[in-house]
Amino acid sequence: MKTNPTLKLLASIALVVAFSAATVAQQKPCLTASKFGPDDQIGNVNYITPAKTLAATKLVTKGKSYRLAIETNKDTPAYAPRTFNVTIVQPTQVGGGSLGPTKTTYNDDMVVGWNGVGTQIDGLGHIGIDYLYYNCNKASDFVATDGLKKLGVEHIPAIATRGVLLDMAGYFNTDIVKEGTAFNRAEIEGAMKRQGIKSIEKGDVVLFYTGWLKLLGKDNKRFGSVAPGLGRDGAKYLASLDVAMIGTDTWSFEAVPFEAGAGIFEVHQILIPMNGIHILENINTEEMVKDQAWEFLFTLGPARITGGVQAIVNPIAIK
Amino acid sequence: MKTNPTLKLLASIALVVAFSAATVAQQKPCLTASKFGPDDQIGNVNYITPAKTLAATKLVTKGKSYRLAIETNKDTPAYAPRTFNVTIVQPTQVGGGSLGPTKTTYNDDMVVGWNGVGTQIDGLGHIGIDYLYYNCNKASDFVATDGLKKLGVEHIPAIATRGVLLDMAGYFNTDIVKEGTAFNRAEIEGAMKRQGIKSIEKGDVVLFYTGWLKLLGKDNKRFGSVAPGLGRDGAKYLASLDVAMIGTDTWSFEAVPFEAGAGIFEVHQILIPMNGIHILENINTEEMVKDQAWEFLFTLGPARITGGVQAIVNPIAIK
Amino acid sequence: MKTNPTLKLLASIALVVAFSAATVAQQKPCLTASKFGPDDQIGNVNYITPAKTLAATKLVTKGKSYRLAIETNKDTPAYAPRTFNVTIVQPTQVGGGSLGPTKTTYNDDMVVGWNGVGTQIDGLGHIGIDYLYYNCNKASDFVATDGLKKLGVEHIPAIATRGVLLDMAGYFNTDIVKEGTAFNRAEIEGAMKRQGIKSIEKGDVVLFYTGWLKLLGKDNKRFGSVAPGLGRDGAKYLASLDVAMIGTDTWSFEAVPFEAGAGIFEVHQILIPMNGIHILENINTEEMVKDQAWEFLFTLGPARITGGVQAIVNPIAIK
Amino acid sequence: MKTNPTLKLLASIALVVAFSAATVAQQKPCLTASKFGPDDQIGNVNYITPAKTLAATKLVTKGKSYRLAIETNKDTPAYAPRTFNVTIVQPTQVGGGSLGPTKTTYNDDMVVGWNGVGTQIDGLGHIGIDYLYYNCNKASDFVATDGLKKLGVEHIPAIATRGVLLDMAGYFNTDIVKEGTAFNRAEIEGAMKRQGIKSIEKGDVVLFYTGWLKLLGKDNKRFGSVAPGLGRDGAKYLASLDVAMIGTDTWSFEAVPFEAGAGIFEVHQILIPMNGIHILENINTEEMVKDQAWEFLFTLGPARITGGVQAIVNPIAIK
Repeated sequence: MKTNPTLKLLASIALVVAFSAATVAQQKPCLTASKFGPDDQIGNVNYITPAKTLAATKLVTKGKSYRLAIETNKDTPAYAPRTFNVTIVQPTQVGGGSLGPTKTTYNDDMVVGWNGVGTQIDGLGHIGIDYLYYNCNKASDFVATDGLKKLGVEHIPAIATRGVLLDMAGYFNTDIVKEGTAFNRAEIEGAMKRQGIKSIEKGDVVLFYTGWLKLLGKDNKRFGSVAPGLGRDGAKYLASLDVAMIGTDTWSFEAVPFEAGAGIFEVHQILIPMNGIHILENINTEEMVKDQAWEFLFTLGPARITGGVQAIVNPIAIK
Repeated sequence: MKTNPTLKLLASIALVVAFSAATVAQQKPCLTASKFGPDDQIGNVNYITPAKTLAATKLVTKGKSYRLAIETNKDTPAYAPRTFNVTIVQPTQVGGGSLGPTKTTYNDDMVVGWNGVGTQIDGLGHIGIDYLYYNCNKASDFVATDGLKKLGVEHIPAIATRGVLLDMAGYFNTDIVKEGTAFNRAEIEGAMKRQGIKSIEKGDVVLFYTGWLKLLGKDNKRFGSVAPGLGRDGAKYLASLDVAMIGTDTWSFEAVPFEAGAGIFEVHQILIPMNGIHILENINTEEMVKDQAWEFLFTLGPARITGGVQAIVNPIAIK
Repeated sequence: MKTNPTLKLLASIALVVAFSAATVAQQKPCLTASKFGPDDQIGNVNYITPAKTLAATKLVTKGKSYRLAIETNKDTPAYAPRTFNVTIVQPTQVGGGSLGPTKTTYNDDMVVGWNGVGTQIDGLGHIGIDYLYYNCNKASDFVATDGLKKLGVEHIPAIATRGVLLDMAGYFNTDIVKEGTAFNRAEIEGAMKRQGIKSIEKGDVVLFYTGWLKLLGKDNKRFGSVAPGLGRDGAKYLASLDVAMIGTDTWSFEAVPFEAGAGIFEVHQILIPMNGIHILENINTEEMVKDQAWEFLFTLGPARITGGVQAIVNPIAIK
Repeated sequence: MKTNPTLKLLASIALVVAFSAATVAQQKPCLTASKFGPDDQIGNVNYITPAKTLAATKLVTKGKSYRLAIETNKDTPAYAPRTFNVTIVQPTQVGGGSLGPTKTTYNDDMVVGWNGVGTQIDGLGHIGIDYLYYNCNKASDFVATDGLKKLGVEHIPAIATRGVLLDMAGYFNTDIVKEGTAFNRAEIEGAMKRQGIKSIEKGDVVLFYTGWLKLLGKDNKRFGSVAPGLGRDGAKYLASLDVAMIGTDTWSFEAVPFEAGAGIFEVHQILIPMNGIHILENINTEEMVKDQAWEFLFTLGPARITGGVQAIVNPIAIK
């Protein structure tokens, strides 16, 4: 990964171009400084106020709730070298033994795997720009092998806010949006108009439906190597609207192959370190699209693994 | 664990006494048959209908949301031999490398641990009566070392229902309810009356607050060896009300030392295999008690690990 | 796994027939009692005396040493549900950091996997007869989820003894001995005669070469589902000669499909619990066969994982 | 870990001073180039020829063999953040089931842990100088998260060579050599003279006894935080003698606190990347010292985990 000086210079220029908007604001303590102060670890989740939550509960009109996760297991396609296994054990019961007069028996389970397998949230410690992470945190200052000392998922507050679902498959009039398709401002506004969604607001969680999960278990190679997804301009547009989180029904979240001229997972960089916006991947909104559940109460409580980078999650949407 | 015939007979008698109510109903296909039919894998969660969910959202008056999990890490007291570790890695970035022109860097994380550490849900495959699990499932028919073939946590639907919080510390006029204290019908009704809760209803999630989590990190030995909790009579009472789930702020859920004459984790047996009622442990309701948030919208989406017995969770309560 | 009384009776009869020789010796404390006393945990390894070791070193005439292990990794075929992964980490060096003035950097590695993957030794706690293990140890007395309390691999002494290699592929005049072929007394004596091996002696380690490892990486399905191997009569014959350990170049050790009338892994039962003879699997003797290294010094020191059932090993043969 | 330019300059100077001998040889392809050519991955193990092995077997006069490992388990003191756990399981046997007519039962075991716990070999991919590893291998070229692509322990050949044991406790006339004591040329030659060892030769394995393992389980804090050990001059001296491997009975191998002016684990750097000499740690030679087994046959076959950095080992010494 060590490059010669010329390549290094070119890379620096690319970096400056990529984040030119940020460099204008010279008074910022660093490129990834938080709007919410030097101690902030949760980013735009700060926008989810009680008033916001209360308003979101008013969106519930039918009481139908949706679990948004796919399953996680050893066959779930995952970004290399991620793996996942569960092991079931029966401590103290070898040979058919049981406990006490009521013959209690029990199963327990161990997980040996990566948090980034299946439906997942990317915490604010997941992605950086040359080892600079969200809110001026340098990797060498907070990344330890036995857990992040800052920006871990245990800090994420209770999430209960307005969710908005954009049906990109409907917008493109297809079952499965083609890989590499990038959703930018035009596509976002087009989908909103088509669905009658008036606005995306501060503190919202925005979910994209592409139909990509239809490939899961049928064409895992295609599923896990490319995908449609959010584009750079679209990411900046949603960031300008102060959304709290953004999710898709793909593994990559952003369009792969990446947009022409884009960096590697640059959309992740725009959202996570630059804007404090959490990312959700492999969010299954198939049934919601069928029900045209476009605006809803979105709730999420990631398991509070201390120092965890990501978390396997299962958000609940209620319409 | 092999016993002589006399001991075996005594054990059988104890079993009959313990579950005498069940044996009366001779027409049941087995002791743990589900009210919801032979294919049922979710128990009383079936009672959480859209109407129930819709009504629960009306309980939200302030928009304040609460995360109910404690943190899970290598120091979290856990039932032996459970362990937990997280490991942070930076694939492909050894030596300070980064990816592409925008110098993307990232952290990933592996979990190596047991699902029963920290705030957890006990799935319906967790507890059995002499290897008979919920809905007539015999261990030999569904328990595999690489994941349960039935009753795994991946089957749990989206949970969004009415939550009721019983402040047992308040009822006993103490900071921390004493270990071994069992909450039975009298205590449950007494707490309800004190708090002005009119009823516990079909499909509710009932949470108990005991103050026990105040011991966490201060006296882990006491915290993890004994606890106050639900009693057998209280469990049967709540089961008779058709609640969906019950939770406490302790590791054991039920009173430890166990009630006089009780089996080992017999309350777990009454709820999980006998009644299809999920159990939640180490649920942190401290702040809710301060706010007197007694009735609320409770939401939960456990990570959908295929064949998982338990899950580390973080339910969200909204008042 | 619970059977009706008739099936149970039949099974018991089968068990009696299988181990009829043992039941004659009624004075034994139990079916699996050790010749070496009630405290013995190492079986026939007791026969490897200093005199035996000294004599074995005299077999070295050329000084050529052989490593007998195949590699263990995530692609190594393994008995379900065994898995194996290694993860490389660089603690404290995120972002290209190094330690101190001489810029020390380092890699560390974690293993997450089963000990029975690749070249392995089966410890005396691996196989039992209806939960009765070697030397009258009942599973309920010594098997704990966090490690065996007896019969763990940490007890195995330093192994340095005479090794004998039987070239069964040569005996059958083939490259790869056909699956299901069972090596019994006739085949063992035939191979010895062909190779000019005069005797198999007390405390020896006997290795079988079949050519089966030629399939590894070429036809993993065939490799890992069937194999030639030791038969029941051959196992009893070698046990009667008081050998210390027996190894093959297959995953199963014994012939699969099993011999007509044989139990499931019954050869393992004959050797491990009944005779205290350790088993070695996936032992690569290809190069030794080329060199006709039939009698040699065999050394082995399994990693001393406390309470371990098996161990991934790499014995050294010296000719 | 980012330093200012002045500090960086000072560090560079230190580096130059530390490895000044190497910089003289300007024609070397890089600082860590191998004597054995650009493809070499095993270093001085190349010196263990059949003639060397044959001669070593002549050192066996009594036939007594020694296992040199301590046990590895969850309580073994280990360099942070290393952990270790073993889990015993009984696949397919839940509820007292068994397999087939002979009622086969079995235990299996999983390991979840780091290879650097207990008695271990440091492979040539373990230690580097600013990400330059043995034989001009840069970390970015061979270190992958799922296993080293070069220098993994699977490449280590069968080890059977002359072993020499230096009794440093005897030399210092003490039970336990004091922490921080560095063994350099004077101490090595002094111990040899005291024990009557005439020479240390090309391809030898040299082991140091300090008595340090007497602290294990008695004072784990002292045991695992400091230690006596090899010094920089001693390391260079032994390297000049072309030894194959060096081991000690401590966790750190080298003297801790480090010698005045030494880098962090600089002795590791001198031996592993600079000289291709493997390191062995926590080697238990207590019984050998009692027997005055100073020169012997040393054998070692590390488990061949593909891409592994270290390995938990149990070498066998035969006298």
